[in-house]
Amino acid sequence: MPRTALILFAHGARDPEWAEPMRRVCAAVREQAPELRVELAFLESIKPDLRACVESLIAECWERILVVPMFIARGGHLKRDVPLLLEELRQRHPQTCFELAPAIGEAEPIVQAMARHALALASR
Amino acid sequence: MPRTALILFAHGARDPEWAEPMRRVCAAVREQAPELRVELAFLESIKPDLRACVESLIAECWERILVVPMFIARGGHLKRDVPLLLEELRQRHPQTCFELAPAIGEAEPIVQAMARHALALASR
Repeated sequence: MPRTALILFAHGARDPEWAEPMRRVCAAVREQAPELRVELAFLESIKPDLRACVESLIAECWERILVVPMFIARGGHLKRDVPLLLEELRQRHPQTCFELAPAIGEAEPIVQAMARHALALASR
Repeated sequence: MPRTALILFAHGARDPEWAEPMRRVCAAVREQAPELRVELAFLESIKPDLRACVESLIAECWERILVVPMFIARGGHLKRDVPLLLEELRQRHPQTCFELAPAIGEAEPIVQAMARHALALASR
């Protein structure tokens, strides 16, 4: 099993409060798996960006870098920009295994959790 | 208990595939609660927009309209634009109870589900 670093990759916004749910997810992952390296990275407005985050993890010799997009759905950034950036990083760092997960909002457990939550709100 | 209609309100994108996770959430809610009226509405690019969706539900005499933002976090749209629009609709339809939930990505059950899912991906 390669030593894995996880990047929670979110869109970002000028308002720094925007990132608060992502920081809570990051903290929850760290609490559940203290041995896992997990970092946040952003597409815009909030640092670090994905490239800087990847480069700093590579400097620490992580063998596998898993990017989990904290997006509700898959738009142009995840269809084009991010795969292109990862391809460039792969060519520059062939010793590292890069993986890009689907948008987290597309994952069946998240779809089901959102449905349960919306239903709970409507039932109050 | 007032008769409630639920609007799953998402950002929207030019690519119609973008809305697929929202359609799955909508279908899951309908399956779990066939008696609940649930609709999708979008801020941009995909129809219906929130105003049109609300007006069509009001024409059907729903007493309570609950808007659940399918956003990973709360940015300018949810802080300013959507509350202003709902205030305008409230004034035009004082007999209807409008509620705006927090962004779904901020809800604790969703934060925890995202953390579990990211961790499961990293453990593969």
